[in-house]
Amino acid sequence: MKDFFQGYKGDALAILKKYKSRVWGLNHIETTRGEFTGTILPRAENDDDQHIVLKIETGYNIGINIKTITNMEEKDYKEANYKVPEKEFPYKEGQASVKLFGTGGTIASRLDYRTGAVIPAFSPGELYGSVPELADICNLTTEKVFAVFSENMGPQQYIALAKAIGKEIEKGIDGIIIAHGTDTLHHTAAALTFMVQNLPIPVVLVGSQRSSDRPSSDAALNLMHAAIAAGHGDIAEVMVCMFGPTSDEYGFLHRGTRVRKMHSSYRSTFRTLGDTPLATVDRHKVSPIKSDYKHRRKDKNVSILPYFEEKVTIIYYYPNMQGDIIDALVNCGYKGIVIAGTGLGHVNKDVYPALKRAIEKGVHIYMTVQTMWGYTHMFVYDTGRDLMALGVVPLDNMIPEIAYIKLAWALGQTDDRDEVKLIMQTPINDEITKREPYNGYLLYQGGVPEVESFVKKFRK
Amino acid sequence: MKDFFQGYKGDALAILKKYKSRVWGLNHIETTRGEFTGTILPRAENDDDQHIVLKIETGYNIGINIKTITNMEEKDYKEANYKVPEKEFPYKEGQASVKLFGTGGTIASRLDYRTGAVIPAFSPGELYGSVPELADICNLTTEKVFAVFSENMGPQQYIALAKAIGKEIEKGIDGIIIAHGTDTLHHTAAALTFMVQNLPIPVVLVGSQRSSDRPSSDAALNLMHAAIAAGHGDIAEVMVCMFGPTSDEYGFLHRGTRVRKMHSSYRSTFRTLGDTPLATVDRHKVSPIKSDYKHRRKDKNVSILPYFEEKVTIIYYYPNMQGDIIDALVNCGYKGIVIAGTGLGHVNKDVYPALKRAIEKGVHIYMTVQTMWGYTHMFVYDTGRDLMALGVVPLDNMIPEIAYIKLAWALGQTDDRDEVKLIMQTPINDEITKREPYNGYLLYQGGVPEVESFVKKFRK
Repeated sequence: MKDFFQGYKGDALAILKKYKSRVWGLNHIETTRGEFTGTILPRAENDDDQHIVLKIETGYNIGINIKTITNMEEKDYKEANYKVPEKEFPYKEGQASVKLFGTGGTIASRLDYRTGAVIPAFSPGELYGSVPELADICNLTTEKVFAVFSENMGPQQYIALAKAIGKEIEKGIDGIIIAHGTDTLHHTAAALTFMVQNLPIPVVLVGSQRSSDRPSSDAALNLMHAAIAAGHGDIAEVMVCMFGPTSDEYGFLHRGTRVRKMHSSYRSTFRTLGDTPLATVDRHKVSPIKSDYKHRRKDKNVSILPYFEEKVTIIYYYPNMQGDIIDALVNCGYKGIVIAGTGLGHVNKDVYPALKRAIEKGVHIYMTVQTMWGYTHMFVYDTGRDLMALGVVPLDNMIPEIAYIKLAWALGQTDDRDEVKLIMQTPINDEITKREPYNGYLLYQGGVPEVESFVKKFRK
Repeated sequence: MKDFFQGYKGDALAILKKYKSRVWGLNHIETTRGEFTGTILPRAENDDDQHIVLKIETGYNIGINIKTITNMEEKDYKEANYKVPEKEFPYKEGQASVKLFGTGGTIASRLDYRTGAVIPAFSPGELYGSVPELADICNLTTEKVFAVFSENMGPQQYIALAKAIGKEIEKGIDGIIIAHGTDTLHHTAAALTFMVQNLPIPVVLVGSQRSSDRPSSDAALNLMHAAIAAGHGDIAEVMVCMFGPTSDEYGFLHRGTRVRKMHSSYRSTFRTLGDTPLATVDRHKVSPIKSDYKHRRKDKNVSILPYFEEKVTIIYYYPNMQGDIIDALVNCGYKGIVIAGTGLGHVNKDVYPALKRAIEKGVHIYMTVQTMWGYTHMFVYDTGRDLMALGVVPLDNMIPEIAYIKLAWALGQTDDRDEVKLIMQTPINDEITKREPYNGYLLYQGGVPEVESFVKKFRK
């Protein structure tokens, strides 16, 4: 017998039956908190019987508390092509083929409505159940490469992803999406930029700041945008695809080496620093903002360079910093240190002797700025020139996080001072840029008219 | 005999004589790079004879290369009330009395035009020579408390400043300006907020991103704004006064606990994070944006709390962080650690055991977010709850830099876990706020119309 109430139980099931509403039915629901129209989604295994999950037109899934429901009416019913859970995705001849790699993290989490806790549970396959539009964008297949929280991602995962990307390109895939928790998404984007070079296709990292079962989730929209970028976009780089403005008109594609998470909870958390984002992306197309991107190619040539030295660290400058910290790092065997220095790339005099000792012992020390925006200018003051004389190398406008990843990658290949320096100072994909555009310090967030009008120019 | 060419020599002196132009004369100068009108300023001791320094109407000093000059004409001449160097400041009966503390740093630097090097040389007294408008704002006296570069500021300087502020309040001063290099200006602002409580008068930290002799210097304007805020403003808090927009219409006053340097070279580098700035300030008045500030009082009551534990540090999270770093810090005797964690306040599992060991040895560990904007939300994921169970204490939306200063200040007073926690979690002046305003993620920089129109509301 057909199950029209997939996953619903108790009170929630009773409400559905009362109003003759079914899973996958297009329903109009009146509640004490407003009226909603959307498709009732199936529930995955859980004990909640107090909510009905509705996919509304904007792409969001919202959980409606059944206690607030005053009326429901099924306006339409289309038998779904999708089953939850897993991997039954309608294949359409001639459509772009996209691979989704699952890694864990918020995009693959769901909310337990009783406890309010976030449970990392959705497999990538289950995501389709929530975002049927994906089937109109591409032929999607998935692979759970591993399942770790974003903050536990590290070299092992970067290398596994780099190799998995290589294999998919070999097989002829048109684009790759990597679903990833947002906390260290920018680190992974940088690692993959360095480890997977000469990409012929788009590699799009995507996350969500609000989990898929939440009313304001950005998971579905970000995933659709990522599928457009991976399956149809012309930009063959490692990119981050996330919520752009505070409205849901478009997302941004950020270059993997110039992006950083800038707000702990906002959906528009990812920002390109010191440059404009690569492009906007909506449910139909990618609209480049920058013109100097790498184009999609037909060949399958790609270089996988899976190197990573684990004894690299970041020193985040603060007043009164003492040399004992540097000495301790050297004693622990650290081979590379990225300093996030003050304004133009300085630290206090007290640490100079320790830096000198570290460099004499072969430690590679690079300077970035903790202001996040702007360039090191170590030649301006005597103090900066002193640091350079000690052997500290400035990295211009490389973001400290990206410098950390790159130094680990460089030291994974060689210990030679000059070679490491050459690798560090030669940008692979704009991790250092010659200049900042006049609007490189702008917010690129919705609600700021100048940004909106700037973006609009590129979205005709 | 009167010296009409103070400090000018060689070619520059010859040009002045040729066109019969004098120091303090209002001149119109035609050059191959445009026309300029302004007052010719005296030069301090230096060997440059290739530039004439002109104060133009916007308050900037510009250096004009004499090779570009095609014509000069003295339109007006007013004998100056000021002498360079030092402390001859016209006293006006009934005007607000303001004390300027010099500390070193860029506002007290000048450019050597031959070598391009910045020389930290101007004494606070010399600044008046460049900014005569100060005399119309307040009766200014100065004191060079010390002279160190911004990056070498530390507890010794914070404590000296706190005590100097206490003494000036005792003497009945109306307001205090602290001239400070920009690199660690926000750290000093936080330290003084905690060390000088119950302030009856404004304490205004001011810097400049471009040194006083440079064409685009913000030194004069920032100093005038600071004098208005210190002498006439009603906000009796520790504040940072810096360039607001990219035009020179107004500056911002930032609360000392919510401000951070965000660009290595832009003049609009200081931003209030997670809140609106306190106020705008122009050459005439302070216009509050926030209404919940502390008002100027007539009494002289103030609490000087000059505490600082030097064994406090910041750990800036990155993927693959290893526990050996935490262990090494404990072995070095560090008593307090502020973690700048990922998104909602996390670190990777690998460091948990080391954090546990550190806490068992009595180290105080506090969590902030490296996104800079937004709150820790350690209860969302199991991992966050695990960290809290270990004894890591979340600090909501306290900025990592501010948390470092506050923890050092707290541990300077007590080692008691609960007392330290109480101090840390009880905001002294909004270093933790209950919520972020809807526009707390905005840029507050010029050229963004929404910000401009928001600010305009408060500047009638």
